[in-house]
Amino acid sequence: MPDTPWRDTVGTGSTSVPTVFFLSDSTGITAETLGNTLLTQFPAQHLERRSIPFITTVEQAQEVVAVIDRVAAAGPRPIVFSTTVSLDVRAVLARSRGHFFDLIGTHLGQLEQALHASASGQPGQAHGLGDAVRYQSRMAAVEYAIEHDDGQSLRALERAELILIAPSRCGKTPTTMYLALQHGILAANFPLVEEDFESLSLPKPLLPFARKCFGLTSLPVRLSQIRQERRPGSNYASLNQCTFELRNAEDMYRVNSIPFVNSASMSVEEISATVLQRMELHH
Amino acid sequence: MPDTPWRDTVGTGSTSVPTVFFLSDSTGITAETLGNTLLTQFPAQHLERRSIPFITTVEQAQEVVAVIDRVAAAGPRPIVFSTTVSLDVRAVLARSRGHFFDLIGTHLGQLEQALHASASGQPGQAHGLGDAVRYQSRMAAVEYAIEHDDGQSLRALERAELILIAPSRCGKTPTTMYLALQHGILAANFPLVEEDFESLSLPKPLLPFARKCFGLTSLPVRLSQIRQERRPGSNYASLNQCTFELRNAEDMYRVNSIPFVNSASMSVEEISATVLQRMELHH
Repeated sequence: MPDTPWRDTVGTGSTSVPTVFFLSDSTGITAETLGNTLLTQFPAQHLERRSIPFITTVEQAQEVVAVIDRVAAAGPRPIVFSTTVSLDVRAVLARSRGHFFDLIGTHLGQLEQALHASASGQPGQAHGLGDAVRYQSRMAAVEYAIEHDDGQSLRALERAELILIAPSRCGKTPTTMYLALQHGILAANFPLVEEDFESLSLPKPLLPFARKCFGLTSLPVRLSQIRQERRPGSNYASLNQCTFELRNAEDMYRVNSIPFVNSASMSVEEISATVLQRMELHH
Repeated sequence: MPDTPWRDTVGTGSTSVPTVFFLSDSTGITAETLGNTLLTQFPAQHLERRSIPFITTVEQAQEVVAVIDRVAAAGPRPIVFSTTVSLDVRAVLARSRGHFFDLIGTHLGQLEQALHASASGQPGQAHGLGDAVRYQSRMAAVEYAIEHDDGQSLRALERAELILIAPSRCGKTPTTMYLALQHGILAANFPLVEEDFESLSLPKPLLPFARKCFGLTSLPVRLSQIRQERRPGSNYASLNQCTFELRNAEDMYRVNSIPFVNSASMSVEEISATVLQRMELHH
């Protein structure tokens, strides 16, 4: 913890909304991910959220406990999700006045038995540099995704593991970025444009790479709505045009045996998981 | 599960390496995140990893159990991390021959008590569209990050919540993408170039936005190594040039009170968590 700005911003105001703390000896990503997943089971709850990463010493843990206890004194008992690994740090954090959820410690004993091995006790390796080769491949994939966004570059398309194709505004770009950043997939994306909708064939530059292509489609009403935000009142955003483009894109996918998914009610995370599964891409 | 390609690719080969299954009724992100965090405690273990997302029915769960049991019959007992929510689905999955880790169910009872509320039992909301406003802000941030990558556009810089500055190849671009995609932060990034190193002032376009700036630096040896991969043998990649640029960048950060961090041994996740904490950016 090089700085601790949270000390000044947290825990003095009295409030009736419970505060949820995400505590970690590293980035806090795992604590936030599982904590928030658990909290989605209580959709009606209004909650304040505070992430405190990089808690690595007993002294820092004691400061954090003081913050939690101040919040506990001023309002409802806080919820505390922790992924800290050090036994000493965990022991201190567990003594706060919050409801303590030890997301790591709870499972470690069972996992030690299953693997016939002892936990290392080393904190925070999950979102560090870790496996350097894997990390570099993710960074290279981000670069590749930016360079090949929206059909900008046809260079090195043969290196792509995946080419996402779709009419404008169906979610190609954020999905490509997600697959690159989280999974290190070399992903290009390519827009379908007017001339593509007049034939049923893949855009010419993609013809040699048909087996790497995955299509996105959407619902005309949804697509029109998204395009209206970008270019209100345009033909581009009209329901007619969106209906035309989506129908033709889907026909084209079918004729060319391109797998596709309707992204209208899916997040980039859901689209990405679907693409990985259907294209059998694993790293 | 629209398709189930994993049925053909998993579990027929006999192997001495334990297989880890990540089972989910949605994307599998939470199961993979906590599961992999737990596994980093056992760095010496070689493991096969299989993610099976979108398990929403008892029939699908039974198919998955059959896959796990086939793997169990052929080699070491598999590890099974599950974040499925449905009691029926969980009950089926728990009967496989793998070591079953119920990452959601384990904590739900305690959380119900803490929140004085019942869990909804609705599967897989954590990485869906969820809060539409928050989701749209993340997507808009990805667009903004691409448009403002590497100083490409100075338009709408006043909308930025954060401007990352650094010499070339210190990690600006992937960090910006991560902050946009995961946290919905409107982040621009801006390269420091030759003329910037000759003065100690911020690049001119950034002068009105000094308080939004965060600097990255690195170690000369590390930076030179990364640049050599891009332009081997160039002055740009020489240790001398890297030393010069990094020293001047750090001086400039200090003179202008720009907070900064040395990214040489940090992942984008760690850099991002540090930036969020130091700049007090929260969404």
